[in-house]
Amino acid sequence: MTRLDDLRAALRAFTAARDWDRFHSPKNLAMALAVEASELLEVFQWLSEEDSRNLDPAAKARAGEEIADVLLYLLLLSDGLGVDPVDAAERKMAANAQKYPVEKARGNSRKYTEL
Amino acid sequence: MTRLDDLRAALRAFTAARDWDRFHSPKNLAMALAVEASELLEVFQWLSEEDSRNLDPAAKARAGEEIADVLLYLLLLSDGLGVDPVDAAERKMAANAQKYPVEKARGNSRKYTEL
Amino acid sequence: MTRLDDLRAALRAFTAARDWDRFHSPKNLAMALAVEASELLEVFQWLSEEDSRNLDPAAKARAGEEIADVLLYLLLLSDGLGVDPVDAAERKMAANAQKYPVEKARGNSRKYTEL
Amino acid sequence: MTRLDDLRAALRAFTAARDWDRFHSPKNLAMALAVEASELLEVFQWLSEEDSRNLDPAAKARAGEEIADVLLYLLLLSDGLGVDPVDAAERKMAANAQKYPVEKARGNSRKYTEL
Repeated sequence: MTRLDDLRAALRAFTAARDWDRFHSPKNLAMALAVEASELLEVFQWLSEEDSRNLDPAAKARAGEEIADVLLYLLLLSDGLGVDPVDAAERKMAANAQKYPVEKARGNSRKYTEL
Repeated sequence: MTRLDDLRAALRAFTAARDWDRFHSPKNLAMALAVEASELLEVFQWLSEEDSRNLDPAAKARAGEEIADVLLYLLLLSDGLGVDPVDAAERKMAANAQKYPVEKARGNSRKYTEL
Repeated sequence: MTRLDDLRAALRAFTAARDWDRFHSPKNLAMALAVEASELLEVFQWLSEEDSRNLDPAAKARAGEEIADVLLYLLLLSDGLGVDPVDAAERKMAANAQKYPVEKARGNSRKYTEL
Repeated sequence: MTRLDDLRAALRAFTAARDWDRFHSPKNLAMALAVEASELLEVFQWLSEEDSRNLDPAAKARAGEEIADVLLYLLLLSDGLGVDPVDAAERKMAANAQKYPVEKARGNSRKYTEL
């Protein structure tokens, strides 16, 4: 059991104990995930890129909380859909290596940085 | 090494080989994460909640790809900030257990389903 | 002068008086707009579609505030880019009428409801 | 009749002719609005703030299309909820003038630029 498996099991038990499965349709979970991703975005909203590389401790703690929320909803949604997110990410990494060959992609953001 | 550690190491190598660190400020990565979370949301946009629980194979495959993108940007952003996302999620689960006691939260979406 | 023109003029004066132009790059304004759109989404997050058609007064008031925020950032961003949003929307409506002919689009959400 | 009133009337006729009201619950329209706001965000995703102030014509045209989509969904959602978005924005501007007094807000993004 990995720690992600443990988290998924804990989320299942948490949700079942509260009878929340009825609210946790994939549609609703995708909405909740998007809302949390925007709360994470809000941390960086008025910062320069440079400042975003040097967060103060309060902003870093807030970012950490929102990262946690994004990961938890991603696990809930993946579990509801029967998708293994780590498998999916490994496949995407393999595809990205083909799509963005090093020699063409080096230092070029225009076409190549969209993972 | 867990598979998430392996993914993080692969992302670091992928980014370094392409000289993309300069584009990967936390601010930009948070934007990319929000964009991918919305692409995932788009899969469910016009579906009923019921239909979202029974995706056809094409929609499920598309959701899987977007889940992969969300996870990869979440790992890149976490790595850039020096945050361990699994640690953060475990802390959040412990906090949620306190915040949403079973006896009060059971079947109640109004105040209690916001993880 | 339409009321939108008045709003735009008021936003320009408001921003100039506070010396906020330096923060209002189109990139930052697009982030702020996405954050506000997600706060609007949050109002509907755990509601059924049916309940979303019959909001209670508190939820309707909250939705109205977020609608205002979205419109204000949309005007700020449009103004910064030199885009007239009503012109752009009129052009898009004309294009949509071509893209979604009535006889093909009637009652079909799968391919045709994405404005 | 303002041009926004005309747009709202055109949207009502467009939607009714295609029998799309059934898909246009406020919940679904709020999702569509968030998706379009993220497509607008995507235009600026890898640009510096400086470059976002000087878009090339192709990026500006793309931004204009997404601005149109955001405005159209905002009008559809407002209409469905019975909210006048311009009224709401005017009220918000009056509230912001109180909340962010010029002498305190000048040049300060930390607490004061969140309209």
